[in-house]
Amino acid sequence: MSTARPLVLHPQRLFPAEPSARAVATELYETVRALPIVSPHGHTEARWFADDVAFSDPVALLVAPDHYLTRMLYSQGVALEELGVAPLDGGAVADPRRAWRTFASHYHLFRATPSGLWFDTVLATVFGIDVRLDAGTADDLYDRIAESLTTAAMRPRAVLERFDIEFLATTEGALDDLGAHARLAADGYGGRIVTTFRPDDVVDPDRPGFAPRLERLGELTGTDTTRWAGYLDALRLRRADFRRHGAVATDHGHPSARTADLAPGVCQRLLDGARRSTLDAEEREQFRGQLLVEMARMSLDDGLVMQLHPGARRNHNPQVFARFGPDRGADIPGPTEYTVALGPLLAAVGNDTRLRLVLFTLDESTYSRELAPLAGHYPAVVLGPPWWFLDSVEAMLRYRRAVTETAGFANTAGFNDDTRALLSIPARHDMARRVDCAYLAELVTTHRLEIDDAHELALELAGGLARRTYGLAGGAAHR
Amino acid sequence: MSTARPLVLHPQRLFPAEPSARAVATELYETVRALPIVSPHGHTEARWFADDVAFSDPVALLVAPDHYLTRMLYSQGVALEELGVAPLDGGAVADPRRAWRTFASHYHLFRATPSGLWFDTVLATVFGIDVRLDAGTADDLYDRIAESLTTAAMRPRAVLERFDIEFLATTEGALDDLGAHARLAADGYGGRIVTTFRPDDVVDPDRPGFAPRLERLGELTGTDTTRWAGYLDALRLRRADFRRHGAVATDHGHPSARTADLAPGVCQRLLDGARRSTLDAEEREQFRGQLLVEMARMSLDDGLVMQLHPGARRNHNPQVFARFGPDRGADIPGPTEYTVALGPLLAAVGNDTRLRLVLFTLDESTYSRELAPLAGHYPAVVLGPPWWFLDSVEAMLRYRRAVTETAGFANTAGFNDDTRALLSIPARHDMARRVDCAYLAELVTTHRLEIDDAHELALELAGGLARRTYGLAGGAAHR
Amino acid sequence: MSTARPLVLHPQRLFPAEPSARAVATELYETVRALPIVSPHGHTEARWFADDVAFSDPVALLVAPDHYLTRMLYSQGVALEELGVAPLDGGAVADPRRAWRTFASHYHLFRATPSGLWFDTVLATVFGIDVRLDAGTADDLYDRIAESLTTAAMRPRAVLERFDIEFLATTEGALDDLGAHARLAADGYGGRIVTTFRPDDVVDPDRPGFAPRLERLGELTGTDTTRWAGYLDALRLRRADFRRHGAVATDHGHPSARTADLAPGVCQRLLDGARRSTLDAEEREQFRGQLLVEMARMSLDDGLVMQLHPGARRNHNPQVFARFGPDRGADIPGPTEYTVALGPLLAAVGNDTRLRLVLFTLDESTYSRELAPLAGHYPAVVLGPPWWFLDSVEAMLRYRRAVTETAGFANTAGFNDDTRALLSIPARHDMARRVDCAYLAELVTTHRLEIDDAHELALELAGGLARRTYGLAGGAAHR
Repeated sequence: MSTARPLVLHPQRLFPAEPSARAVATELYETVRALPIVSPHGHTEARWFADDVAFSDPVALLVAPDHYLTRMLYSQGVALEELGVAPLDGGAVADPRRAWRTFASHYHLFRATPSGLWFDTVLATVFGIDVRLDAGTADDLYDRIAESLTTAAMRPRAVLERFDIEFLATTEGALDDLGAHARLAADGYGGRIVTTFRPDDVVDPDRPGFAPRLERLGELTGTDTTRWAGYLDALRLRRADFRRHGAVATDHGHPSARTADLAPGVCQRLLDGARRSTLDAEEREQFRGQLLVEMARMSLDDGLVMQLHPGARRNHNPQVFARFGPDRGADIPGPTEYTVALGPLLAAVGNDTRLRLVLFTLDESTYSRELAPLAGHYPAVVLGPPWWFLDSVEAMLRYRRAVTETAGFANTAGFNDDTRALLSIPARHDMARRVDCAYLAELVTTHRLEIDDAHELALELAGGLARRTYGLAGGAAHR
Repeated sequence: MSTARPLVLHPQRLFPAEPSARAVATELYETVRALPIVSPHGHTEARWFADDVAFSDPVALLVAPDHYLTRMLYSQGVALEELGVAPLDGGAVADPRRAWRTFASHYHLFRATPSGLWFDTVLATVFGIDVRLDAGTADDLYDRIAESLTTAAMRPRAVLERFDIEFLATTEGALDDLGAHARLAADGYGGRIVTTFRPDDVVDPDRPGFAPRLERLGELTGTDTTRWAGYLDALRLRRADFRRHGAVATDHGHPSARTADLAPGVCQRLLDGARRSTLDAEEREQFRGQLLVEMARMSLDDGLVMQLHPGARRNHNPQVFARFGPDRGADIPGPTEYTVALGPLLAAVGNDTRLRLVLFTLDESTYSRELAPLAGHYPAVVLGPPWWFLDSVEAMLRYRRAVTETAGFANTAGFNDDTRALLSIPARHDMARRVDCAYLAELVTTHRLEIDDAHELALELAGGLARRTYGLAGGAAHR
Repeated sequence: MSTARPLVLHPQRLFPAEPSARAVATELYETVRALPIVSPHGHTEARWFADDVAFSDPVALLVAPDHYLTRMLYSQGVALEELGVAPLDGGAVADPRRAWRTFASHYHLFRATPSGLWFDTVLATVFGIDVRLDAGTADDLYDRIAESLTTAAMRPRAVLERFDIEFLATTEGALDDLGAHARLAADGYGGRIVTTFRPDDVVDPDRPGFAPRLERLGELTGTDTTRWAGYLDALRLRRADFRRHGAVATDHGHPSARTADLAPGVCQRLLDGARRSTLDAEEREQFRGQLLVEMARMSLDDGLVMQLHPGARRNHNPQVFARFGPDRGADIPGPTEYTVALGPLLAAVGNDTRLRLVLFTLDESTYSRELAPLAGHYPAVVLGPPWWFLDSVEAMLRYRRAVTETAGFANTAGFNDDTRALLSIPARHDMARRVDCAYLAELVTTHRLEIDDAHELALELAGGLARRTYGLAGGAAHR
């Protein structure tokens, strides 16, 4: 290990270099550093916590499922199989140690990326590692992590305590039986680990197997999902099931932000066409858009916060999709329009103070042009935090600088980690808290914000806004 | 008042925190701080100055008409009526003191927004207030402001002197009788308070009542506005009227930057359709676009500077529009294309050095992509300052950083306050001067600009460019 | 000369003002400052070096051919003829000294622009000038430069040595005879000054004279370019010719990034239509898009790096085009979509590790939205450096801040000077090196990057990545 380089997390990382701003950022950060984590949107799996069994190995836990990581190596010519990602056809895949070595020897690719920052933070704070990951240290680090994973302290529920995660939302599809959540509730985790209603599979006719899933939805709910009214009833019933399992929100991953508010007869015809795969592209957009308005109306009744994540062109790489399936880093964003697209939804329910519609984007050009103006006017609209490719130091700063002056802080939703990488959750919240404190320090030292207000806002950004947006305990009333 | 927090305007607010850059910004700012105000584009009302009567109360002056302010509270669930905004149906509205209290108790929403910076500056510098506005100080501040409004020093003409406003343009529609401006001229304000020709109401067939307004335009000018040639004559005559009332510019608020240069026969058919409301969306765009080219041609003859403000989707919220009318904060921007859209206009007159076409945008992605390249090539094109949602510290810095390297300073138009909030005019110009000095300091301390050039440019940005763009006394010749 | 102001290039120009970041930037820059120049994409002329005759005068060398410079004066009302740009009709043009005086008296327009920074650097470092250019110094500087141009040290090959240009690519059209490159090879410059294959003229049916050029292409290559297969063979043969003259890359300047992968029968019909000028706009896009996929497939075979420069609306100003021809500063960018547009090409060859597709843009909104996600996933995709209007201090920083967090450094192509302004080549590389060091210093002082990694990356950014991308000696293997 003579060549190992030290892994050091600088205590003032991500703060401005300028000393006066750094001092303010440090002062603010000290007040939020140790606050419990509120995670209202994420992709960990409920069964991890329900089963509470140990994670199998470093690659299966930390590398193979994390498409932020595997995509970068893939872009540099490393086959996904070499990273422990199993092809759908059962083809060969590298064993964990070999995959880890491959990952380690390419780890320099993550310099100055959020993935690198998160991974280093996990290594240092979760596993107590003090050398940087590279080809030379790969084996030693693998062994230390693998050993750690066998301990009781690294089982999912213990991790939850250790990370001080006060609230954790998972995401389940509309046909999920929610069994893992039922077991969690039986074990006293109800209201702490909760589900989120994600109906994309039963509202998007572009997804293969749409018609059979609608049938299944009908069976599950005892409704006739071939009829528009029955279909809506089925969704309403499933939302109620999800609420019984703690859900505070729905989540909608659509290609666009398009919404529609059509007559019931038209809706029935669209439903018929969706089931028979006879809709053209425009009609499929209308169908999805109509469902968004229906979901918003249901939110008025049941109080579920509505989250909209538009703009990804999913499965852009047909070869990777055919070989490995979805979620392999091949979803690529495109331009996303909100102002016209959301018109029908906002005309219908945008002035209703009962609704909270959290808007996310992958298109930063919309921050100052569309999203901040919408959030700064409509009572129902709240801006979600920077998402996915934008969940990074620079992009988070750009977000605050672009939206605050028009929408203020109160129309933003607080931080979401949005991750399936359980061990990185504290690292992600820590990064967000640091960046928000850096931004506040910038405002204070340029005399755009008083220090007492900055202290109040640091607390809001570190948890208060998330609590308020999702109606959680400890959050001030929404308005 | 024991809990009142001090209101302090830091003398170096908005300057960089880094000491060497702050020192340069301070040095530059001292040379422009006290310069007279040139305001070539705004929305104060000529009758205020013509009548010169006292403003009625703090809410009617400072809150209710300012949709920058009311929209933020509306977005957080406060009804507009509670802020003193009267519904069109004559429904109940909060009395001024109650509206002020509501505003004060939500004033924290404006932290780190330009609205907050402007409002604080007005409180401190116009009314001498030294405590921050909140629920606890609301009544006291209301009383102090209300009392101040009864004094002679707060009557509109006195305010004009006190603010050292050298030139102030208001904006009037094409059918306005310009009576207030005639009275101002009679009182010696000619050439100081001037009108601006805003023909949107008589060139945009999407505006309800288009046909009757065309008739009225014909009556006013003694022309046959059902014929294309007569319609153009009418516009030409009204431009001449406006010029007689001091106008130096026209202003055009269009949904897009689309222009067209069609044959007269086509124009006549479009006019016929516009009057009969039979044009489709594309034809209405053509009609508006044709009028922009006609206006540009008229500018060649009469010398009026042409200002184009495209990109807002007006009255996006049908419920707010129905209840309160336009200009209530519900105009939302969308993507705006300039390169192709302006092609016909620029092909016709873009090389003519007599024309000045000032382009504004609500879509920042166009700064480096379209606007700076257009302004850095076409003799006729000048970039307007950041507009509306972009009239803020961060957005102003983004603007300079995005356009200067391609278009330089000389192809920008100087600052416009664009406001109806009379008392905020000095605060807005002061913010712009501070931000411009901060930008120049950034250039100087990174050795991209010499300090002597920075001094020259600070003066240009604080008034010289505006004078030059609008052809005012004291401005260097345009080229 | 008593009023002449000193021209000083600050040794730490373009570095951050904040002292700790400035110290790091300085430390990094010292290691790359004097490295040889690798210039894999540019527009100098091979015959300059083949003929090696002296440049005629300061204006013909430094001003008239540089549309970055002439456009700025044109935008302020200076006729291009006054700057030594000859109209196509043989009309009058200012003599060099008069043109130089006009240029000098408007030189203040370039304050804080990259053109100004480059020009000052050329004056100071190439000609040893120590006073700023303005009306007062114009004649003296003209004389000094003119005299210098008569010396052996200022002949093209001597300049190449003096600038330590290790590798220089020019760009030639598909019909070029490459005679200058043959002469260069005969003189021992083979592999140092190389050509680049730019087939736009024979793949874009929008260019006047397309059909005759296809005939000429057939003659040159002995193929039947009226048949799809023959046409592709012709392109293949010409690529081989270019490779024999050192080419390592192709370059494609298209209006959009549109690609297509159509059946051969469809391709033949498109070719027929292209030759007969019967294609509509959509078909012309398909034709160009198909050719991009063909070029990518040929790159798999012959190893030429593929460079795509989309998004300029060429010859936007019909009057300037008619009078002076292309490349006069009147190409204006527009919105450019990549995700959907590149779909067919990437589906066909995007996973092939043999291909390097270097993507450029004039639309910064695509950096974080499309380009970094594409480059961070597809093995074939590499991001080109900021191009054209974006080749500037602020835009380069925006580029790094927008793409690094998603694509890392390894998916970027290193710097290209992309210039025809020979004398400015070192100034441009120096600016890029300074800005990259400034960016790295920002990362180091905010503790997002260790100093040892920063040193490694500074070397990569100053040449290593360019060598690797274009497969040059001294570049690490691509992966």
